[in-house]
Amino acid sequence: MHPEPGDYVEVRTKKGVFKGILMPRNRFSDENVVILKLDNGYNIGIVPEEIKIIKKGHFEKKSHKRDIPRRDYVPTISFIGTGGTIASYVDYRTGAVNPALTAEDLVFSVPEIVEECNVRASILFNILSEDMRPEYWIKIARKVKKELSHAAGVVIPHGTDTMSYTAAALSFMLPELSGPVVLVGAQRSSDRPSSDAYMNLLSAVKVAKTDLGEVAVVMHATTSDDYCHIHRGTRVRKMHTSRRDAFKSINTQPLGKVNKEVVFFQDYRKTGDETVLMDRMDEKVSLIYYYPGMDESTLESLLMDMHGAIIMGTGLGHVGTHLLPIIEKAVKDGTVVGVVTQCLYGRVNLNVYSTGRKLKAVGVIPLEDMLPEVAYIKLMWLLGNYDIDTAKSLLSKNLRGEISDRRMITW
Amino acid sequence: MHPEPGDYVEVRTKKGVFKGILMPRNRFSDENVVILKLDNGYNIGIVPEEIKIIKKGHFEKKSHKRDIPRRDYVPTISFIGTGGTIASYVDYRTGAVNPALTAEDLVFSVPEIVEECNVRASILFNILSEDMRPEYWIKIARKVKKELSHAAGVVIPHGTDTMSYTAAALSFMLPELSGPVVLVGAQRSSDRPSSDAYMNLLSAVKVAKTDLGEVAVVMHATTSDDYCHIHRGTRVRKMHTSRRDAFKSINTQPLGKVNKEVVFFQDYRKTGDETVLMDRMDEKVSLIYYYPGMDESTLESLLMDMHGAIIMGTGLGHVGTHLLPIIEKAVKDGTVVGVVTQCLYGRVNLNVYSTGRKLKAVGVIPLEDMLPEVAYIKLMWLLGNYDIDTAKSLLSKNLRGEISDRRMITW
Repeated sequence: MHPEPGDYVEVRTKKGVFKGILMPRNRFSDENVVILKLDNGYNIGIVPEEIKIIKKGHFEKKSHKRDIPRRDYVPTISFIGTGGTIASYVDYRTGAVNPALTAEDLVFSVPEIVEECNVRASILFNILSEDMRPEYWIKIARKVKKELSHAAGVVIPHGTDTMSYTAAALSFMLPELSGPVVLVGAQRSSDRPSSDAYMNLLSAVKVAKTDLGEVAVVMHATTSDDYCHIHRGTRVRKMHTSRRDAFKSINTQPLGKVNKEVVFFQDYRKTGDETVLMDRMDEKVSLIYYYPGMDESTLESLLMDMHGAIIMGTGLGHVGTHLLPIIEKAVKDGTVVGVVTQCLYGRVNLNVYSTGRKLKAVGVIPLEDMLPEVAYIKLMWLLGNYDIDTAKSLLSKNLRGEISDRRMITW
Repeated sequence: MHPEPGDYVEVRTKKGVFKGILMPRNRFSDENVVILKLDNGYNIGIVPEEIKIIKKGHFEKKSHKRDIPRRDYVPTISFIGTGGTIASYVDYRTGAVNPALTAEDLVFSVPEIVEECNVRASILFNILSEDMRPEYWIKIARKVKKELSHAAGVVIPHGTDTMSYTAAALSFMLPELSGPVVLVGAQRSSDRPSSDAYMNLLSAVKVAKTDLGEVAVVMHATTSDDYCHIHRGTRVRKMHTSRRDAFKSINTQPLGKVNKEVVFFQDYRKTGDETVLMDRMDEKVSLIYYYPGMDESTLESLLMDMHGAIIMGTGLGHVGTHLLPIIEKAVKDGTVVGVVTQCLYGRVNLNVYSTGRKLKAVGVIPLEDMLPEVAYIKLMWLLGNYDIDTAKSLLSKNLRGEISDRRMITW
């Protein structure tokens, strides 16, 4: 008898013998590796030498989809599937072979969601989020606009790797929203009903039912299943590879939290009558991490043929002074160059030290307390939708909550 | 009468009228800007239209240097000046014109230091820390070896922007130490006796008197003047542009803290009989920040002619799959390529998703929970001191506490 997903098995490997439930392959799986759910609840990927069935499993593929009549007393929420761990978690939970998990399966596997709203579900694409590209952001933005003419809010399950990039892109491409746009992911495929996928998804739905006229990311606030944070799409960053509370609002408080109810900590833009789409992006922009030892030719090649560049400088926004002539030339040639800090936390200030002042003198734009990734996406969006002078002047202005009020220039 | 540093003045500018103590220029000052210490204690840089003297100052340039006989009951500590804010803070404190603050002036301005040790002080160079380069790291490492034949420990005042890069470089270049090597900086020039420069410097001296046979960074642990943290040189990162507690140990606890006494939280390498110097660095290494939208030619130019490269991937250590052929070619051509995470916190794991496994298959080395900057410097050092195969195998091994013990591969 051939071992199948759902069977309780013993697997012999070069590293020892492991027992657990054989998990299904999904589209992200390697052919040589089997996934085993150990008795302690963890999943492990191992290369088997021999697999022995201890107990045949009883798990069967079930479609969670149910035909539920539309109810007028709950709003309609649209779910736009894009891929990522969250789209594959049910596999790991049920042990069922479910390689192409649909958005409907995902949603209907959480009964509380069906109570909260009428579900509209579709899969826009199914990619690994590290493969995200500007063209996909544009597709999502267009789909959001379309869905918001049918739904009160949109929930976008997304891989966590680049979720904050997508959140920033949608924030700029959708300056006005008739309903909330909520990105949500899962840090781990888990078998427990308290898995971060469940709680994150349900919390995202609750946020999608509010009057938040912004793009938000909803993810675990702590490593327990206490509550979720609502992060502004232009302020959030994945700050841990694996923890469930990996997403943090940087240089600001989260917008709010979701427990049983949604509580906002901060003012936010309210939903309006219509959704405005500005979906052009200039892809000729680079994000440059400065480090001591970076030589002139490296920076030159990063700036070459670029319409814009964001430099992640040290401290208050500095680079080695040997690079100033390269930057000066790029600016003269029409490249828009902005500077942010690789510290991530805090505000750049080009007025304190001579290097900063020299950077300002050659035309580098200090980008306050904006996150590097957000600045990069904002510049792509500005250059795609405005003339260069307008783009330059808007780059350091707060458009979507991406920059905090500037205090007096002190240090 | 011409306004001079130390005078209490009224300055008229386009933005309004400001009152405060006129501060001295230093080598970092812009000629058009005057620095004014406001009544609230903050310094402000403004372009004056008119300056009116309200009260002539009484501050005079005083040398703090004192001739103190060598005492046998305290150890000798060597101070190696390299520049940075910490080297200019006394200006702001006294209001005295003191453009070329010597290491001796710096040290002797803190009387407690003179009580703690016999002072050996020298200035190796005086640069802005964003101008730090591998050649300077080599100079410092050589100087440390020399000084440790005269002194029980070394304290290196350093600009904060790149202090953690220097700490990592010294950690690798000095595999064995006969005395502690302590880097210390100041986040702000301040006029109060409780300034972070004072406490940081005094705390650094206390650490330099211990049996720590490692390179450490000593900086404020909180925004108050409670105590300092001792960070392992391979584990520390500047995480805020301006806060006094900007330096954080990442993926580990700090080594210890300094209040009145030094308390260690963790095991550490003890000082040995001699100091070993391995000071070659291969500068043909790049540090690459991956972002969605990075195209093939950008990555190609970053890898071209490089002996090594560290990629800051997303999440568990991923890049867009379209870049795999570029990386594969570079590895085949002999470039050592390692991957770390742009999350900064957490451990990379190339076994979970297919992109990770593909990266591993083309020869990319996953670098556990090592910090990006540390991995970059480690690779320069390995390629400078070992053959390529040894360099490859040591890159993912823990040499100086830069990698935490690997747990079971679970997620």
